[in-house]
Amino acid sequence: MRKLLKSMSLAAMFALCGTAMAQETVWHNPLDVPAGKTFVHNQAWNEDGGNYARLPMRAKDKVREAVWDLSRNSAGITLRFKTDAKDINVKYTVGGGMSMPHMPATGVSGVDLYRDRDKGFCFGSYSFGDTVRYSYCVDRGVRPGAMEEFTLYLPLYNTVNEMWIGVPDGSRFEFVEPEAVKPLVLYGTSIAQGACASRPAMAWGNILSRNLGMPLVNLGFSGNGRLEPELIDKINEIDAEAIMLDCMPNLIGRSSEEIESLVTEAVKQIRKVHPDVPVVLIEHAGYSNAPTNEVKFYEYDHSNKAQRKAYEALKTSGVKNLYYIERGDLGVLPEGIVDYVHPSDLGMMRQATAVERHLRKILDK
Amino acid sequence: MRKLLKSMSLAAMFALCGTAMAQETVWHNPLDVPAGKTFVHNQAWNEDGGNYARLPMRAKDKVREAVWDLSRNSAGITLRFKTDAKDINVKYTVGGGMSMPHMPATGVSGVDLYRDRDKGFCFGSYSFGDTVRYSYCVDRGVRPGAMEEFTLYLPLYNTVNEMWIGVPDGSRFEFVEPEAVKPLVLYGTSIAQGACASRPAMAWGNILSRNLGMPLVNLGFSGNGRLEPELIDKINEIDAEAIMLDCMPNLIGRSSEEIESLVTEAVKQIRKVHPDVPVVLIEHAGYSNAPTNEVKFYEYDHSNKAQRKAYEALKTSGVKNLYYIERGDLGVLPEGIVDYVHPSDLGMMRQATAVERHLRKILDK
Repeated sequence: MRKLLKSMSLAAMFALCGTAMAQETVWHNPLDVPAGKTFVHNQAWNEDGGNYARLPMRAKDKVREAVWDLSRNSAGITLRFKTDAKDINVKYTVGGGMSMPHMPATGVSGVDLYRDRDKGFCFGSYSFGDTVRYSYCVDRGVRPGAMEEFTLYLPLYNTVNEMWIGVPDGSRFEFVEPEAVKPLVLYGTSIAQGACASRPAMAWGNILSRNLGMPLVNLGFSGNGRLEPELIDKINEIDAEAIMLDCMPNLIGRSSEEIESLVTEAVKQIRKVHPDVPVVLIEHAGYSNAPTNEVKFYEYDHSNKAQRKAYEALKTSGVKNLYYIERGDLGVLPEGIVDYVHPSDLGMMRQATAVERHLRKILDK
Repeated sequence: MRKLLKSMSLAAMFALCGTAMAQETVWHNPLDVPAGKTFVHNQAWNEDGGNYARLPMRAKDKVREAVWDLSRNSAGITLRFKTDAKDINVKYTVGGGMSMPHMPATGVSGVDLYRDRDKGFCFGSYSFGDTVRYSYCVDRGVRPGAMEEFTLYLPLYNTVNEMWIGVPDGSRFEFVEPEAVKPLVLYGTSIAQGACASRPAMAWGNILSRNLGMPLVNLGFSGNGRLEPELIDKINEIDAEAIMLDCMPNLIGRSSEEIESLVTEAVKQIRKVHPDVPVVLIEHAGYSNAPTNEVKFYEYDHSNKAQRKAYEALKTSGVKNLYYIERGDLGVLPEGIVDYVHPSDLGMMRQATAVERHLRKILDK
């Protein structure tokens, strides 16, 4: 069975545009830029000489080791480039394991290429090895010789060390710099980081960013989205369009008072630096097995009630531009979850769609 | 990062109902039945002394080796049982690889437990090893001492050798025999077999079966759903409520005439034995990268046009109870696909919902 699916994948691999095999591939390194410049998108800090990580070196001693380690994963990071090539190749090395039992290699360690003009998905045949390789054939809807712009979504749950994008010799190719627009910021858990999307573009933050046409800084840290002041400090350094706090699933086991306090302090800490930026509190989307398991029902219900209480008190105390998205609005349960809590692409799409609806209203877009 | 998610999973594993650890587990083998009886659901043939396979031994020399090998996979097979236990354990051995690069172990080799009464999903913590183990805690919404009925979905892309279901000593437990009702039959490709659902219950045939409350015989064979007369012969042995033919993705590369002929002959062959059973022809749901790749666009478009032509001709020639579901109706593309063609849970849900809508009309349900 595995052999059969593998042979299908190989067949697709050789169904390339055709010319690439005969031509030399020229490889471009997105980190090969003059100092002070960057081609890495959705990255809030670009001060360490170029990488695909999510926190700057100077945060290393400020945050817990687990947060720091997870910040090396490239969740939410994208690259953009223009080319007239029809054959596009990506090769890179990663620092962690390729897959998880409930999340395939394509999601944990894979990349995703989209054509910007029409948000057209470009399937890439792939091989996962010491070097991960993707080969794309993009030859429909292109005008001869014209440059097309693309977005490449980087791995959700792995650390990208070195990456190159290759096009046939003679093709034009240039990386696109990030625009100077304010990003959305998403601080959260494994779910925000992207577990368990089948491929990077299907993490809900990435769907949201694509659908709104806005950059999004992903600060999802698996098991470690705990509303810590050290992290809020980092968020406060970002000139954000809106800040989403989606940490409830990582505050399970805390008392109602602790959760209220964490939410309240986080919002107040943001307000000290950003008096007006919209802050969106997102509820725990729930557990898939809450209808059949006592503990799971009480856990999400408890954390949501505590966050709600903090929200009401903050509103009453006069905090403006504070928003709240309820679990019922997210509509993730239960078929949209792969295990007890991590959304499949079905859950990811539902969560992204719900948050997009709220943000369009909040940002008047 | 893997360590972190693994530790989350282990934490969930030990958050069981509590009593199980102290009590001996009594294991029940679903194949331990008197001759002529079966506890295996959605299996059209039960004549080989008990297994979780999809074709009978006497088909071995009639079908191609690839089809035979794939027929050993337990796609679509379910077990049902009643118990008053809150702790439910499953252990089994499998014959193939645990995962694929684009489909996680939970989908390829995992099981899924649902409570029948409310279709409540029961998350099971799992470990994949020489023996695969799932542990469930189902303690919400149950009445003390009352029996609850459950459905267990078996692995989509692996062969189950031996399986046991365990409950604490002293609990009541009994397997439920299949009811004598006509099943739906789904003949198709890797997609019908279940690639790339994140877990077995999310294969579109299983969603459909669950939502309609009808048994469904899954004859999806990865890469090998080719409308062969030998397979139609086997389908003709089944007293079906409806027969779905969903083979277009495996007829890529064939001429229009070949596809027309295969569709026409398959329908005629069914009509010789079953003059009235509804036959549903399903279009190729399309390729995710069809907007960006010439070949992929023409491939699905070509096969769908050929099948459509056969359908029109059959209708004109007077064949009754023949139905047709168009690609546009399925609504799978492009975000619902993990690679170029295999649906994620998002695509699976869309396909299941669309086919359900048609079947409710066809079967007046």
